[in-house]
Parts: sequence; structure tokens; C-alpha cells
Amino acid sequence: MEVDEVVCLPKLSRVAVCGGTHGNELSGVYLVRELVKVDKKAVEKKAEEEEPASVLMVLSNPRAIQQGQRYVDTDLNRCFTHAILNGPMLDTAPYEMIRSRELNGMLGPKGSPEAVDLVCDLHNTTANMGLCLIAYSDCDWICLHIFRHLQVSQTSSNTWEITMEIGAQPHSVVRSNIYTAMKLGVQHMLDWVRSFNSGRIFEGGFVDVFTMVKHIDYPRDSETQNITAAIHPQLQDRDFCLLHPGDPLFQTFSGETLTYKGHQPLYPFFINECAYYEKGIALSLARRKPYHNMAFKVHS
Amino acid sequence: MEVDEVVCLPKLSRVAVCGGTHGNELSGVYLVRELVKVDKKAVEKKAEEEEPASVLMVLSNPRAIQQGQRYVDTDLNRCFTHAILNGPMLDTAPYEMIRSRELNGMLGPKGSPEAVDLVCDLHNTTANMGLCLIAYSDCDWICLHIFRHLQVSQTSSNTWEITMEIGAQPHSVVRSNIYTAMKLGVQHMLDWVRSFNSGRIFEGGFVDVFTMVKHIDYPRDSETQNITAAIHPQLQDRDFCLLHPGDPLFQTFSGETLTYKGHQPLYPFFINECAYYEKGIALSLARRKPYHNMAFKVHS
Repeated sequence: MEVDEVVCLPKLSRVAVCGGTHGNELSGVYLVRELVKVDKKAVEKKAEEEEPASVLMVLSNPRAIQQGQRYVDTDLNRCFTHAILNGPMLDTAPYEMIRSRELNGMLGPKGSPEAVDLVCDLHNTTANMGLCLIAYSDCDWICLHIFRHLQVSQTSSNTWEITMEIGAQPHSVVRSNIYTAMKLGVQHMLDWVRSFNSGRIFEGGFVDVFTMVKHIDYPRDSETQNITAAIHPQLQDRDFCLLHPGDPLFQTFSGETLTYKGHQPLYPFFINECAYYEKGIALSLARRKPYHNMAFKVHS
Repeated sequence: MEVDEVVCLPKLSRVAVCGGTHGNELSGVYLVRELVKVDKKAVEKKAEEEEPASVLMVLSNPRAIQQGQRYVDTDLNRCFTHAILNGPMLDTAPYEMIRSRELNGMLGPKGSPEAVDLVCDLHNTTANMGLCLIAYSDCDWICLHIFRHLQVSQTSSNTWEITMEIGAQPHSVVRSNIYTAMKLGVQHMLDWVRSFNSGRIFEGGFVDVFTMVKHIDYPRDSETQNITAAIHPQLQDRDFCLLHPGDPLFQTFSGETLTYKGHQPLYPFFINECAYYEKGIALSLARRKPYHNMAFKVHS
């Protein structure tokens, strides 16, 4: 590798780890509380100067956490738009809209030089997706390198933004194996940041990325809009296993099998995610593609 | 078997199958809706005269079902007490207290000769309990015979009352395998009732029953009352597998293992049930005992 091919990027001085953006996704809630406790002990020991990046731990939606609900008034995860963050707002606005502006004050302002450099938002799903990283662009080099470091591939401002999505875990439940997987995921992510900040050169290479193509809704009764089928038992828990045209997709409540009518094989994910019933999503389908990532290092 | 040893019991003329007592336990909700649909078709075909028992299908808590919540104001399952069903009640009483009196009008009055003969209440749990029948007395012959018929053993007025509890399924999610297990469970239960009503003699014999001994709560922070540990990964999903003193019970969020300090081996169940966090129950422990059931038949 020749050094002049290496892209230089600024240091990731400030990282935020956010749990409880959805108040009933408990791994992130308990992990953030635990990390705060550990952090306090570290400060007491005056060991914080060893840290090459400041890490801010945030419980994003404290009211929803207290109520054990996904959200109080509206989905917080849909409130970080320019209009909501910057437009006029009444005191009577939905709680999550007000809270998104508070968070923008703490971690942003979004898009400004004062904003944190990397946000890692912790989520759980009832889908059997394992540890899965979601990014919002496929040329997000930092995120692609972190994906590679975690040996997990999945779809992807100058604030880099990752969602760490782990399942299968029922909402409002904490399963120790899922909690531990998230803890290790966050530790590895922070290890990567420290390693990057300390000047290590990361080689370029291919990373497998799943890019969302479309959503599929449950079959519904045209009058009541109630669902009339569940995910087929042969598809349930088979996230990221290729789904071919003709494969079983749903089983109706009277026992009939409905098959996948698409014309191309695609990768299903978010299969039977609890919170997506109301959004009209039974599963999502993705295309798998290797993305070439650049070699890079911190700007010195 | 000598015929004079056979206990004679009255016919089970009226059976109720109830789903959605907890509005986010979806198998029962969708199964009752499906059975109502099938029942309507049967009535259209005028096939209903073949039925040796009338089966009433009930959605117990329609408001909670609509909201996708366990309950609106209070747990409906705790509202069938003499005081709530028969005492004075204001219009401003919690919704579930008002609803329990409506249900008592439809299926009861509880304890009266007009009440239905058998109630089967359908539930889901996030615990890995399989298809599990819960009765409220261990000398409930009808229920013990149904348990045997279903080849499931588990811990039972002259209204016989069974709770059919099936998991693991996250709340607010429907999994096809769990739905199908519940459908078969209800079909077998109704087959047994038809068989009993038509005069078949059921032999006596032993049935394994798990009787609840005690509940164990999660370890909690003495100040905040937040839980500080999850069910240990070696115990998670191992409902009805014997737990010995010294076996791992919890894993704290800092990674420490806490063991079972009891003096006798017992059978854990309802391990990590979502709705029991608020009740302070991480798991329940039971003793297993064979109960001798009487031979019996319908009173002719």
C-alpha cells in the first residue's frame, strides 16, 4: 500500500453512545446505565486522561423508558429532520419533538462543527438479525471501516451515524446474550475509534453491504385492516438468508401458504419486527453488494 | 376398570374460548377472530347441529387489543374477584373493572348455574414454556383429564377454568408456529369436550403437575429499583428444566454470575416473562408431583 493513496480524515474526538431512543428496547437502556456507572468509577480513579476520545452516554427518551413504551407521543427516531429541529415549536408539541431539540442541543447542532463526530444509536428488534449495523449512506467510510472491524456487513454529514440493531429480543425484555452482544459491539466500536485516533492506517478493501430495496406488508382484511396471516414458519428467524421467488412468505390464520411473488431473489431482514406492524412492514428486502472502501487514517 | 368406580359429572354444554384478555398477546386475538369466521361459515352451511357443545368465542379486552397494550387501566386478569364483580361500581372505575362485569354477564354470573361450564383463556408468554395449561386447583378432574389429553402436564368452581399459555412469543407479535400450536391446543380441548359429552368413559391415572412454590425477583438497585441483572444465559429458555442449588440464575450488567441459593432443586417457569418485570417476578419455581386422577364420564 502506498501512503499517498491513503485518505486523511479528521480525528473522532467526540463520540456519543445513545440508548433508549425507543423506550422498550432495553439492551441499550441498561448498557448506557452500566457504562455511565463504569465511567463514574473511571473518573474517580482519574483514569479518564487515557481516553483518546470523549464518549458521551445518553438515554435518549427518558419518558418513554420510564413508561416502558416505544415512545410517548411519536417515534423519536423520525424527529431529527431539519424542519422539526429548526422550525418554530409550541410548548404543546409532541414530547419527542421537544426532546429531539434538546438532544440536538447536547449532540449537535446537526450539521455544525460543534456537533459530536460519531453517534452510535442502540436498538433492539424482535427480528433474528444478530448484531447488525445500519448506516444511511454507502460511501460512509468511517462506518464501513467500523463494520469491517466488527466483521458484520449491513446497509449505510460530517457526523457519522450508526444504528446498532440487535435481535431477536422481545421489546420490554432484556436477554443476557443480546445485552452482552451489544456491550461487545460498543466496546469494539470504541476500540476502533481509539485505534483510528492514535494514527493507525486502515487498509482499503471490500465490505459486503445490504441495501434496502423494498418493504412488504402483511396481507390484511380490506375492511378491518387487521392482518390475516403471519410470517411463514419457514421464513421466521431467517433474516439475511436469500429469499427466492416461490418461497413461502406468509401463513394465513386459516393455514394457507402464500409465496414470494417477486421476480428476483433478495435478502429479507427485519422479519416480523414488533414495532413495524403499525408501519405496515412485515419484512424488508435487500440486495447484497460488495462496496470498495478507501484506505485511510486520521489527519495528523 | 369397574364401572361403579367411575365418577359421573354433568355435561359440558357451554364452553367459552377467550382471547385478548391481555391485548398484546396476539395468538389468542387472531385465533378467536379466525374461529368466529369459521363458525359463521358453519352456521351458513347449517352444520351447527352437529356440535355437541355450544362454543362461545370472546375477545375479552377489546380496548386493550385496539391499543396493542396488555391493559388500558389495570390487569383484567386480576379483576374477576367477588368484590369487583359484585360490589358497587362508579362509571369512572378503571375500564377493566367495568369490562370484567360485562364478561361476568356474558359468561357467568361466576359461581351460578347459568355460568358456562368451561372457560379456556388464551395467553402468550415471552418465556419458553411451550404449550402449557394452568389450572387453579389440583383436584380439578376435568382440567386434569384435558391436560392428559393434550399430553401436557402443568399446575385448577363448578366452572372449570383453564389458562392456555404458549411461548416463547414476544408480546405484540404473532409467530406462526405459536399460533398453530394454540389452534391445535384449542381443537384438541374441544375434541375432548365432545368426546366426554358423547358418553366416553375416561380412565383414571396419574398426571404430572407442577405446583408453584415461590417467585424470584430480579436483583435491583436499592435506590432506583432498576434491575441490575438479567436472567443468566444458561437459564434463559430452560423453563421446566430442573434448577439445582448453585446453578447460574442471573448475570449482572457488569458481567458477574449470581447463583440459585435455594436448598432444594425446583422447576423454573415463566422465566423472563415481559409483563412480570412490573410485578417483580423474574421467574417462578415449582415442585413436580404426580396427581392421581379419577376415572369418570358424563352424567347420563
